Amino acid sequence: MKTETKKHPTGCPVAFGLDIFGDRWTLLIIRDMLLHGKRTYSDFLASDEKIATNILANRMRHLEDEGVVTRARDPENRRSFIYTLTDKGLSLTPVLLEIVRWSGDYLRLNKYRQDLVQRIDSDRDGLIAEIYQRVQRK
Amino acid sequence: MKTETKKHPTGCPVAFGLDIFGDRWTLLIIRDMLLHGKRTYSDFLASDEKIATNILANRMRHLEDEGVVTRARDPENRRSFIYTLTDKGLSLTPVLLEIVRWSGDYLRLNKYRQDLVQRIDSDRDGLIAEIYQRVQRK
Repeated sequence: MKTETKKHPTGCPVAFGLDIFGDRWTLLIIRDMLLHGKRTYSDFLASDEKIATNILANRMRHLEDEGVVTRARDPENRRSFIYTLTDKGLSLTPVLLEIVRWSGDYLRLNKYRQDLVQRIDSDRDGLIAEIYQRVQRK
Repeated sequence: MKTETKKHPTGCPVAFGLDIFGDRWTLLIIRDMLLHGKRTYSDFLASDEKIATNILANRMRHLEDEGVVTRARDPENRRSFIYTLTDKGLSLTPVLLEIVRWSGDYLRLNKYRQDLVQRIDSDRDGLIAEIYQRVQRK
C-alpha cells in the first residue's frame, strides 16, 4: 500500500489529526509506545499485527517529521535507534483510550483488555496520568 | 489509493477500531454526519476535503457492512440514498471529540472550532449527549 501523503488543508481539526495518524498502522505504533513500553524497530516489528519494515520506516519518519516522536541512537547498540514520544505524541492517549472503549463494546476481549476497558470507564483521568508518568519515567 | 482491506485479527481493540475507521476519510464522513447533519452522497461530496466519488462509495459500503451506518432510499429522490448512523456509529463521538481536542493544541482554529474545543474541555459529556439527541431526532 502506498501511503497517501497529500494533506487536507481545510483547517478542520479532524482532518488535521487524520493527516498525522489516519491510517491503519500509526496508532498501533503509538499504542505500542504508550501501553507496552516499546521503543525500537525490533520492538515494533515483533507486535502481533506484523507491520512490514518499509511501512514502519515510512511511519516513523512521518511521526518524527510531525513532532510526535523523537529519535536517538541506542547507546547499547549504535546501529539502532530509540524512539520517544513527545508531548504531542503522549497527548494522543485520550484518542487511543476512546478507541479501546468503543471497540470494547463490539469485540470479545481477553481479561487484560477487559480490565483496561473497565479502568477507562471508572477512572479515565487517573489512567491517563499513570500512562504519562510511566512513559516519561523511561 | 487502493484501500487495504486485510484485517488485523489480533484481538486488540485498537487494531479492531483501525480496521473499521483507520484511514484518511472514514472519520471525516462520520464527522459530517455527527457534527454537520449530512446524510447523502451529495452532502459528503460537498465537504471541503473533496472526497473522490469512488473512495466515498467504497467507504460507505464498508461502513454499512460494519454496521456503522444504515442506508435507505430517499423518499424525495428515489435515485438517491439517505445514510443514518447506527448506535455503533453514534458511539464514535468520543473518539472524534478527542481528535478535535488534540488537534486544537497544534492547529490554528477559527472561532466556531475554538468554541467546540472549549465546550469539549468544559462539558464533554453534555456535548456528547447533545450530539446524540440532535442526530437521533432526524
